[in-house]
Amino acid sequence: MSPRKLTGKPEELAAFVDKFDIFLFDCDGVLWQGGTLLPRAAETLAHLRSLGKKLLFVTNNSTKSRTAYQKVLQDFGIPCSVDEIFCSSYSSAVYISRVLQLQRDKKVYMIGESGMKEELEAEGISYFSDGSGDIMPEDYDTFGPDESVGVVLCGIDRTISYRKLARAYQYLRNPGTVFLATNMDSTYPTNGKLFPGAGSVSAPLTYMTGRPPLSLGKPSQAMMDAIEGVLKFDRKRACMVGDRLDTDIRFGIEGGLGGTLAVLTGVSTEEEILKEGATVVPDVYLDRLCDILG
Amino acid sequence: MSPRKLTGKPEELAAFVDKFDIFLFDCDGVLWQGGTLLPRAAETLAHLRSLGKKLLFVTNNSTKSRTAYQKVLQDFGIPCSVDEIFCSSYSSAVYISRVLQLQRDKKVYMIGESGMKEELEAEGISYFSDGSGDIMPEDYDTFGPDESVGVVLCGIDRTISYRKLARAYQYLRNPGTVFLATNMDSTYPTNGKLFPGAGSVSAPLTYMTGRPPLSLGKPSQAMMDAIEGVLKFDRKRACMVGDRLDTDIRFGIEGGLGGTLAVLTGVSTEEEILKEGATVVPDVYLDRLCDILG
Repeated sequence: MSPRKLTGKPEELAAFVDKFDIFLFDCDGVLWQGGTLLPRAAETLAHLRSLGKKLLFVTNNSTKSRTAYQKVLQDFGIPCSVDEIFCSSYSSAVYISRVLQLQRDKKVYMIGESGMKEELEAEGISYFSDGSGDIMPEDYDTFGPDESVGVVLCGIDRTISYRKLARAYQYLRNPGTVFLATNMDSTYPTNGKLFPGAGSVSAPLTYMTGRPPLSLGKPSQAMMDAIEGVLKFDRKRACMVGDRLDTDIRFGIEGGLGGTLAVLTGVSTEEEILKEGATVVPDVYLDRLCDILG
Repeated sequence: MSPRKLTGKPEELAAFVDKFDIFLFDCDGVLWQGGTLLPRAAETLAHLRSLGKKLLFVTNNSTKSRTAYQKVLQDFGIPCSVDEIFCSSYSSAVYISRVLQLQRDKKVYMIGESGMKEELEAEGISYFSDGSGDIMPEDYDTFGPDESVGVVLCGIDRTISYRKLARAYQYLRNPGTVFLATNMDSTYPTNGKLFPGAGSVSAPLTYMTGRPPLSLGKPSQAMMDAIEGVLKFDRKRACMVGDRLDTDIRFGIEGGLGGTLAVLTGVSTEEEILKEGATVVPDVYLDRLCDILG
């Protein structure tokens, strides 16, 4: 079925919003674009709150903790609580502690940044990581398997090094070591350009081991499992809102959510949404999020 | 046809050797194993030389220049000239200068080590690279496409960094920029363990761009083209000798060489060689290279 563009008729908009108790929002491309808040985005969120809707902010960004991401939202003039934020560093930590239920005597070797550390700490998970720095002659002797490492978790890390990859590989040669990635995004937008994303940071490990990581970011359903691990909600009364068909909309469809809403302020275009034979199709779409206000 | 194990009969061995004017040798696993010379390996090479055979040493190792690799061979007691050595840093340089014929006003952005630099310099190719070091805030502004970069060449680099990958990606977004890798080995044996190889270093770029590099290492025929770019020989009178079916033996077969000889002192086993339905099958095999002496 072809997706429907919501018209501006108040009764149609109200009927759509009424179908849901909870809205899951992607952020970049939906609420803001680069460093600029999109028109009336904050107002739209406030409107949904005034109707009693629950809001969740679901992002693949793994560089920031929830607390740090809350500040990003607040700086854009969007009030929110930490509990409403699901970034992939948090979904990874939740997955390890509540879904995998990693044993207390096992630890995580992490390749990532401060947001990942904060979230692992907040979940009480033992972890360790390497600082930046070249591989040292003694590493060739000392690096090896370690039964105490239960998980290798890989996210974007702008101090990725041969040393970190070499160490992770030794752990991953043990088939019992779980291989997780915060997300599989190939690129990470910065300053209006594309830079290597978390999926590119884990790519050498996938190439070496022949096994891809389980992703804790959209569209992986492991992220949905992590959300459900901390927050019970009726999927049929939930709507995913996003700008990317291949991550956001797919995440909502495969998660069996009651609805998916695409907006045209980000990556995917109207042409892609309406393309014949498209495999990922949102239920409805709008030019901009604020069009939901009528 | 099932591969044949050469018997020790002098007339059979002589008939085999007589078929060839030139022998291409993989080194690690054929001549030595880790840091130890294999039995009578140097003697076997000397015997072939005494019969007037030409020898070539063909290795995917890109860390060393030919001069540095010559020293490795000499330290094992194997006399040889620089002209007899084809390491993948050399085949990459030769491919750029003689097969691609890179224009004089274009340069190479290289991710690699000293051996690669030496070989690019020896071929008179303009190149640049980044030192080790983290990505800097200004890089997010200054990194971008550069029409003067004609080739991105990636080999093993034990100071690989986010900065190097981010820069290479900006160049590779231009579809006119050629993407080369010294080889696609996923791992690099060091101290009896496996560490990330050249193919793992280029994996993030492949993941980001969606285009794999052209490999200048075995089994890629671009390496054979590079060898032919500097040395004319009759392929039907050439024999590839190696320990790995998937790189060495495949390299010889796909190159249409007159013969392939596998030895069991390295990676591939007799079981693999004789496996029913195997797609890469050597003409003949021996337990050890020196068995050719009878």
